[in-house]
Amino acid sequence: MNDCIFCKIINQEIPANIVYQDDKFLAFLDINPVAAGHTLLIPKAHYNSMAETPDRTVGEIYVKAKELMLVLKKGLNADFVVLSVVGMDVPHLHIHLIPRYNNDGLASFWPTKKYQPGEVEAVIKKIKNNL
Amino acid sequence: MNDCIFCKIINQEIPANIVYQDDKFLAFLDINPVAAGHTLLIPKAHYNSMAETPDRTVGEIYVKAKELMLVLKKGLNADFVVLSVVGMDVPHLHIHLIPRYNNDGLASFWPTKKYQPGEVEAVIKKIKNNL
Repeated sequence: MNDCIFCKIINQEIPANIVYQDDKFLAFLDINPVAAGHTLLIPKAHYNSMAETPDRTVGEIYVKAKELMLVLKKGLNADFVVLSVVGMDVPHLHIHLIPRYNNDGLASFWPTKKYQPGEVEAVIKKIKNNL
Repeated sequence: MNDCIFCKIINQEIPANIVYQDDKFLAFLDINPVAAGHTLLIPKAHYNSMAETPDRTVGEIYVKAKELMLVLKKGLNADFVVLSVVGMDVPHLHIHLIPRYNNDGLASFWPTKKYQPGEVEAVIKKIKNNL
């Protein structure tokens, strides 16, 4: 897409620190890293989001993400690597791969809450009604 | 596995609020939800982590995650759904599906940092050496 920053990276119209690429996928360092080696994996074909991405590509990109996750873990001596799709900040499907360390001081997750009485049943009903 | 809490849920030895299941996968509400409808999707076969999960299953579980993501988004009127594999808290592969709302007040992400001069090149070298 003409005005997509990730498509411009794919087309070499703007620079990026590319880690890996093949005919279908490109991986490059996030310009605002949570940790050194924080990588974005994208399909070379433009899809706004996971919802628009064909199932075959969804499967393939996560197999590639698994492969790169293991590369990052080993190459950067990470304790684990978070693999996440977060919202729509850039509307070109991208998977974050974030090297994590047991002592990196990052919160393990967002704060959690408790369900109110009856809430679980209502939530399950709403979900199942859309299955 | 005998001592795996998620295997016990699969085997109905301990209860869970099940949202969806088929012959390969099970989805249930996280007992410590970040938001109502926070769901865990797991394979019925036990794999400690993504690293140990066969590529075929990795592909299939993310296609299922995409499907459930759209169900949660619609059923719970979420603005978007975060899809994340986070570390090894329970060593049975699980994907978090977290309904998010533009006004939910959750931080969009962990704090970011800047690379020091020369650091990018060193990081890329470490990664590429393991490709």
